[in-house]
Amino acid sequence: MVGAKLAERLARDGMLAGMPVAHVRLADVVESGSPARAGFDAEVVVGDLGDDGVVADLLEDCPDVIFHLAAVVSAAAERDLGQGYRVNLDGMRLLLDGIRTRGIDYRPRVVLASSIAVFGAPFPEVIGDEQLLAPLTSYGTQKAIAELLLSDYSRRGFLDGIGLRLPTICVRPGKPNAAASGFFSNIIREPLNGEEAVLPVPDDTRHWHASPRSAVGFLVHAATIDTGLLGDRRCLTMPGVSVTVAEQIEALRRVAGDEVVRRIRRAPDESIMAIVAGWPRDFDPRRARALGFSAETDFEEIIRIHIEDELGGTIPAAGV
Amino acid sequence: MVGAKLAERLARDGMLAGMPVAHVRLADVVESGSPARAGFDAEVVVGDLGDDGVVADLLEDCPDVIFHLAAVVSAAAERDLGQGYRVNLDGMRLLLDGIRTRGIDYRPRVVLASSIAVFGAPFPEVIGDEQLLAPLTSYGTQKAIAELLLSDYSRRGFLDGIGLRLPTICVRPGKPNAAASGFFSNIIREPLNGEEAVLPVPDDTRHWHASPRSAVGFLVHAATIDTGLLGDRRCLTMPGVSVTVAEQIEALRRVAGDEVVRRIRRAPDESIMAIVAGWPRDFDPRRARALGFSAETDFEEIIRIHIEDELGGTIPAAGV
Repeated sequence: MVGAKLAERLARDGMLAGMPVAHVRLADVVESGSPARAGFDAEVVVGDLGDDGVVADLLEDCPDVIFHLAAVVSAAAERDLGQGYRVNLDGMRLLLDGIRTRGIDYRPRVVLASSIAVFGAPFPEVIGDEQLLAPLTSYGTQKAIAELLLSDYSRRGFLDGIGLRLPTICVRPGKPNAAASGFFSNIIREPLNGEEAVLPVPDDTRHWHASPRSAVGFLVHAATIDTGLLGDRRCLTMPGVSVTVAEQIEALRRVAGDEVVRRIRRAPDESIMAIVAGWPRDFDPRRARALGFSAETDFEEIIRIHIEDELGGTIPAAGV
Repeated sequence: MVGAKLAERLARDGMLAGMPVAHVRLADVVESGSPARAGFDAEVVVGDLGDDGVVADLLEDCPDVIFHLAAVVSAAAERDLGQGYRVNLDGMRLLLDGIRTRGIDYRPRVVLASSIAVFGAPFPEVIGDEQLLAPLTSYGTQKAIAELLLSDYSRRGFLDGIGLRLPTICVRPGKPNAAASGFFSNIIREPLNGEEAVLPVPDDTRHWHASPRSAVGFLVHAATIDTGLLGDRRCLTMPGVSVTVAEQIEALRRVAGDEVVRRIRRAPDESIMAIVAGWPRDFDPRRARALGFSAETDFEEIIRIHIEDELGGTIPAAGV
């Protein structure tokens, strides 16, 4: 999802890091659509980073910038340990070693999508930039390892890496999915579409969000900035908005009215509550802000961006 | 070195974690000596963890306790990136996956020797248990990754892991070596043997030390404790003694006299000074202390242990 939006953004900008975008290769395990009206040559590659030869093909013409967003996500990595390590760890290493062995003059910018899942409870109410990596999932472990590898290979001069710990992306477009974090988006997206959404946690549950548009903005900015400013710590927690579910709902009410909010049905789910209890609630991402990364300032803005980017600027359910 | 001393300790105790030691397999890339007067069957295995079949052989009879001390050390891992990752990361994964696929009833205690090299400057003068992993060497990166893997595989229930970040081991027995940290031991060991030792850093250089005897004590204690007390953070910074080089030298003077101390020759080396400047100086390892891990209380004790364990209780150079 973020990858497709990034491709659209590149097509719209035509530029990245002050240079015209000449060629974009979009690689995924399923066939991705290429962006409409792109001024560049967009090539769609279907392949698994962990498979023989895929990395070599991707690096064939030495791309200047590589966005590595591929991952076996949280629930899947927990269900299938081998598959998670194969894609999230071995895939990363194959990519890094592919770059390292490509030649001494090749040192691309590598932008890694990491995750706040690298952190695990107990943590302070507001998490600073010095928080230790202590993941509580295999996915978070694999992302933490990917961060360490990125920093080491950058320090050694094989590439110019930067890792971004993305907030939970909200409002995630598309259908409700089975992810434990899905409800944060469902309770906004579904009522706006006239559908009911289930809220499985208490209203005082606090979490850390940014819009898909911000996520793309982080990636583009990461491709642009002077990484000399990062020092040896190449990975950063991205800005976001810390809100409770109650604050999400009040923002929805201000944007779309009571009738829309009434489509949220409370159905507490102990298992989801237990998972969410281990998640971070708030960050103070000073390093990223000082480097010019920015997200929304409140949750209402996150909802308005969803309406602009996904609903053509109007609320389909408002007239229902 | 620590492995050989651990085998001797097991031979002397005959017990580990309240159980008689029945069988010990000593695996190394070179042939290790087996301890004298052991009441158990000691088998010496020569093999590389990263090579096919070696892990399967080592796990054949499902050892209850596994001490994983093997590593490509700091300077070598920096010199040869591939070899460091192969042994320190792939070797660790092969071991963990070997255990995981051995069977659902097999859940051994795995004691990993990690290192304070998982930390990198900038850090506070005294480093606490919440310090983030930010290594500045490939060796430190590989150890940090090994820690993350150990915690994840333990959380998943495949094994019962505990990782120990060992201080710099001092006084390291044997000949002076090329390690950047070698001088911390050289300036004690060599003068006691009537030999000159070179000090390449200023006298106010502070560092974190424990004796080889303490290192073995940490490993044995780690095999013994209730890991339920660790929670999900399976890796601990071990206790040690924080001293300046000047304090090391004054301790040597008290133990062995002025004549011995005069054998230390100051020869500042900018390259070693630069490396040492990135190293931690002092820790407050509360978690480990609360769990019963203990080291020496001062550097004089570290010297006396060296004289007891390596020099038969007397100072050869005292009468020179």
